[in-house]
Amino acid sequence: MKKNKKVNAAIIIIGNEILSGRTQDKNIKFISNWLNINCGITVSEVRIIPDVENTIIKNVRLLSKEYNYVFTTGGIGPTHDDITAMSIAKAFKVRYCYHKQAFKILENYYGKKEFNDGRKKMAKMPSIAKLIYNPSSAAPGFITKNVLSLPGVPSILNSMIENCKKYLVKGLKVHSKTINLYTVESKISKQLGVIQKKNKKLVEIGSYPFFRLGKIGVSLVTRSTSKKKLIEVNKEIIDMIKLKNIKIINI
Amino acid sequence: MKKNKKVNAAIIIIGNEILSGRTQDKNIKFISNWLNINCGITVSEVRIIPDVENTIIKNVRLLSKEYNYVFTTGGIGPTHDDITAMSIAKAFKVRYCYHKQAFKILENYYGKKEFNDGRKKMAKMPSIAKLIYNPSSAAPGFITKNVLSLPGVPSILNSMIENCKKYLVKGLKVHSKTINLYTVESKISKQLGVIQKKNKKLVEIGSYPFFRLGKIGVSLVTRSTSKKKLIEVNKEIIDMIKLKNIKIINI
Repeated sequence: MKKNKKVNAAIIIIGNEILSGRTQDKNIKFISNWLNINCGITVSEVRIIPDVENTIIKNVRLLSKEYNYVFTTGGIGPTHDDITAMSIAKAFKVRYCYHKQAFKILENYYGKKEFNDGRKKMAKMPSIAKLIYNPSSAAPGFITKNVLSLPGVPSILNSMIENCKKYLVKGLKVHSKTINLYTVESKISKQLGVIQKKNKKLVEIGSYPFFRLGKIGVSLVTRSTSKKKLIEVNKEIIDMIKLKNIKIINI
Repeated sequence: MKKNKKVNAAIIIIGNEILSGRTQDKNIKFISNWLNINCGITVSEVRIIPDVENTIIKNVRLLSKEYNYVFTTGGIGPTHDDITAMSIAKAFKVRYCYHKQAFKILENYYGKKEFNDGRKKMAKMPSIAKLIYNPSSAAPGFITKNVLSLPGVPSILNSMIENCKKYLVKGLKVHSKTINLYTVESKISKQLGVIQKKNKKLVEIGSYPFFRLGKIGVSLVTRSTSKKKLIEVNKEIIDMIKLKNIKIINI
């Protein structure tokens, strides 16, 4: 992959507990933010799927072809419903076996006596996998081709994310700017549409209504890999807002 | 669709602001929970996609064939990046035009003088759409074949969800039970796997580690459409836990 190109990624959240509505996902926002800010990588798609082998295999195959990187979360623990590693091995048609270094790390962490079958399972991964170290609870994540597999528990995932960096080619940084206004979207939608149309190749303009302290407002978010273009478009938006006598909360 | 069958759904979250990590999604958990508890409908897949017409069309076509219902959130406001209604019209190859009743509702809400082009846009939808009423901010959602389109702002979506009910055929209720333990997953993973294997057709067992007040614990969540089978499996799990002298926090 060439440097200074746009680089994208997909996230696959593997977990019945998210689909059932039992658990609020926090990993999507965290990974997307981290990739954006630290790696210039844009998340282009997210899928949340159940702990079903064929579903995992199908999605890993498809998305690893379509995007530069795929992040999976969940399903790499010791229980029967942790089938991510085995499914990824099957997706890439490689063996599912003990990773020597992972085995050593885990054996060392738990001690030989306490290193039971469940714990040993966490050392099993696709034969071609390389480790993503886990500073908080030892059990490593792993990368298989362009697919990076992390645990589902947010605090553990967060502690590991920096160890993904060495496997990622950075993309062009996306700059962004937010303007918050007290107005309703429909008051600016026409002019905003004109500005977006004129600049559609280089700047993406998003408009997001909010309610704050009983007042209605709009956040206008502009994003671009060109800082210069971003400044220009924001000037155009601010001029338009001022002409309409709309109150800017902050820029 | 026959009553008393398993009924499933997919959710498509349409919004660059979720993909960029700017905004924490809250709609997935809310919709999944509501469908589960109120309609016996299981969410089987979620996709988060950008505000890109072709991407929306492709996903709506695919998922509306694959699942009984599809819920979309986001992209039904007045601005240029609100392209959900138009994209769904294209997905089903029907016209994108004013919905008479929606037009009236909005005109009445804003008053003729304040009913500008941006606001009128919110009355445009697929020609075959039926309305989902919005008690909080007037602009209605709509259902096109088996695809229900709701706004992205959580408070508005929440206020509208009950109005989806009349369009949904209820499925078999899924019962669930959670047992919280102070233990680590690997202490019970083997026996839990055996219990899951024996009951895999009727009961789904999930194991989710947590950290609470500095202690490590596991939530065991069982789910089944058969209440009787759920009670049996939970008895089996509790017997296993007691045999291991593991502390149950609550059942």
